[in-house]
Amino acid sequence: MDGRVDHVGIAVEEIDRTLAVYSMLGFERMEEETVESEGVRALFLGGAGPTRLELLEPLHDGSSLARFLSGRGQGLHHVAIRVRDIEAAVSACEEEGLTMSGAIRTGALGRKVAFVHPKSASGVLIELVQAD
Amino acid sequence: MDGRVDHVGIAVEEIDRTLAVYSMLGFERMEEETVESEGVRALFLGGAGPTRLELLEPLHDGSSLARFLSGRGQGLHHVAIRVRDIEAAVSACEEEGLTMSGAIRTGALGRKVAFVHPKSASGVLIELVQAD
Repeated sequence: MDGRVDHVGIAVEEIDRTLAVYSMLGFERMEEETVESEGVRALFLGGAGPTRLELLEPLHDGSSLARFLSGRGQGLHHVAIRVRDIEAAVSACEEEGLTMSGAIRTGALGRKVAFVHPKSASGVLIELVQAD
Repeated sequence: MDGRVDHVGIAVEEIDRTLAVYSMLGFERMEEETVESEGVRALFLGGAGPTRLELLEPLHDGSSLARFLSGRGQGLHHVAIRVRDIEAAVSACEEEGLTMSGAIRTGALGRKVAFVHPKSASGVLIELVQAD
């Protein structure tokens, strides 16, 4: 693992009401996707750099994102780090004593993802995302 | 402005107790600095990608970071976007109707920075940082 930030996840009530500020800062709309398994609509924003922003809006009140919004309000949600081999990365995390949140699964853009629970990482929800 | 994420700021109680997980993910210690004007100790972590992580620890209870930690606990604190000309970027933000949090000032690494207030940006504290 070589220290690359893939994207920063941002929890919002409504994606379309959030775009202006990022557009002004040079981020453009990229892929948009509904991830039914997570109960979210996701819009990636990208610019000249490799790190994207991912705006996340809940699809329904039962989603964990909706619970996050009720509890903490809109704001930064997670940071996603690239890994080459997700199974190896999860094993390494578990060997370090970190607690994973759920199993390896398919996330946005069809990529394999896994999450380190915030209680294991000083309050930060870390997504591991398998990417070249 | 061309859409580059400079770094992601993470608020922690103690930097040294937070390093293991990021080290495992491929991030190494880079610059470390005490920013007296903000009441923080900052440690940048970097890897193969251009986006860094900035671990932030309060120097004293009166700092805004200490208030953030009391209110919300440890976790993601801000996202920093690169701009080429900070004065022009702040003017553009103000023309869009965004509220800035304080004036342009010198932040970590001697760079000029300014902050968009979270209430203007869907709960996200956005740092603008002047960098090439």
